[in-house]
Amino acid sequence: MSGFLELAARRRSVRAYSDRPVEQEKILRCLEAARLAPSACNAQPWRFIVVDDPELKDRVASRTSGGIVPMNYFTRQAPVHVVLVLEPANLTSRLGSAVKGKSFPLIDIGIAAEHFCLQAAEEGLGTCILGWFDERGIRSLLDIPRRSRPMLVLTLGYPADAPDRPKKRKPLEQIASWNGYHGSRPADDA
Amino acid sequence: MSGFLELAARRRSVRAYSDRPVEQEKILRCLEAARLAPSACNAQPWRFIVVDDPELKDRVASRTSGGIVPMNYFTRQAPVHVVLVLEPANLTSRLGSAVKGKSFPLIDIGIAAEHFCLQAAEEGLGTCILGWFDERGIRSLLDIPRRSRPMLVLTLGYPADAPDRPKKRKPLEQIASWNGYHGSRPADDA
Repeated sequence: MSGFLELAARRRSVRAYSDRPVEQEKILRCLEAARLAPSACNAQPWRFIVVDDPELKDRVASRTSGGIVPMNYFTRQAPVHVVLVLEPANLTSRLGSAVKGKSFPLIDIGIAAEHFCLQAAEEGLGTCILGWFDERGIRSLLDIPRRSRPMLVLTLGYPADAPDRPKKRKPLEQIASWNGYHGSRPADDA
Repeated sequence: MSGFLELAARRRSVRAYSDRPVEQEKILRCLEAARLAPSACNAQPWRFIVVDDPELKDRVASRTSGGIVPMNYFTRQAPVHVVLVLEPANLTSRLGSAVKGKSFPLIDIGIAAEHFCLQAAEEGLGTCILGWFDERGIRSLLDIPRRSRPMLVLTLGYPADAPDRPKKRKPLEQIASWNGYHGSRPADDA
């Protein structure tokens, strides 16, 4: 019963990679996990561009690190980048987003990205989800059409030997309540 | 190696529930899985309100079904509703969202919701993620303060006996490409 909890605990943002190449079949299983992700109105508004050509990858990596805000230099180490592109959603999803004033496709993109990363963790691979990158540069490098938008970049590779830092998370009492925003947990029903 | 892929395949949107009550320890493990979810700048901009008081749950359920658009009547069967509230993110995440023109917290909410649902699937429980509901009604029923916003409602319960419908998903070739938006998969490296 604790399989998924263990996986969720093991998945972490990896910011140091070894140069060991990533097997294509592992990438395919990560894509398969993402493909199975749920989405509002089953729109599946996503496309995954796997960048594993070393030269192209270096050019993509230079758009995810440095720049005006010098950050994320670690991305240059990662042997693979996966660019997650938001595709136009179906009409039902777009109508729902408009009426309810929240972007369902953005929620969907988060879910699909995490499916990819969880399967990567299962395969012994590390990932880091990046939302901060040179969108225009990546669009041009990868020929992404105007109706689509690169939303996230996932770095992928075998983690370098590095000590696991413990996850920092808010305690449960700060993020959960019962039967109201301020309600506390009822006594155990056991 | 196929544990997560199997779980991802098994998780589905459950729209018919039995009236069997849900054990509190199972809900706690779902919350724990959600608590471990990653988020932009580790903002963890979320709060989970578990509604398992039967009367209150019925009132919440009446805000997730019917109304102007008559839909989702199945929610009334689900013994538990979990309202996922978007909390104000930290400054780094908010700055990033503003500069890059995309809501990182919305992506985060998707990830955390899915962690909850995946753990529920692991526990033999069914869920359905709802983005369409009477936000104002739920805000008022659960005393949600103005700075927070109910973004999703998850129904939770044991699935009623119902035949599994196969997942409908786009084939891999439609959602993935290599080294460019239009690139195809390189020959196997094996």
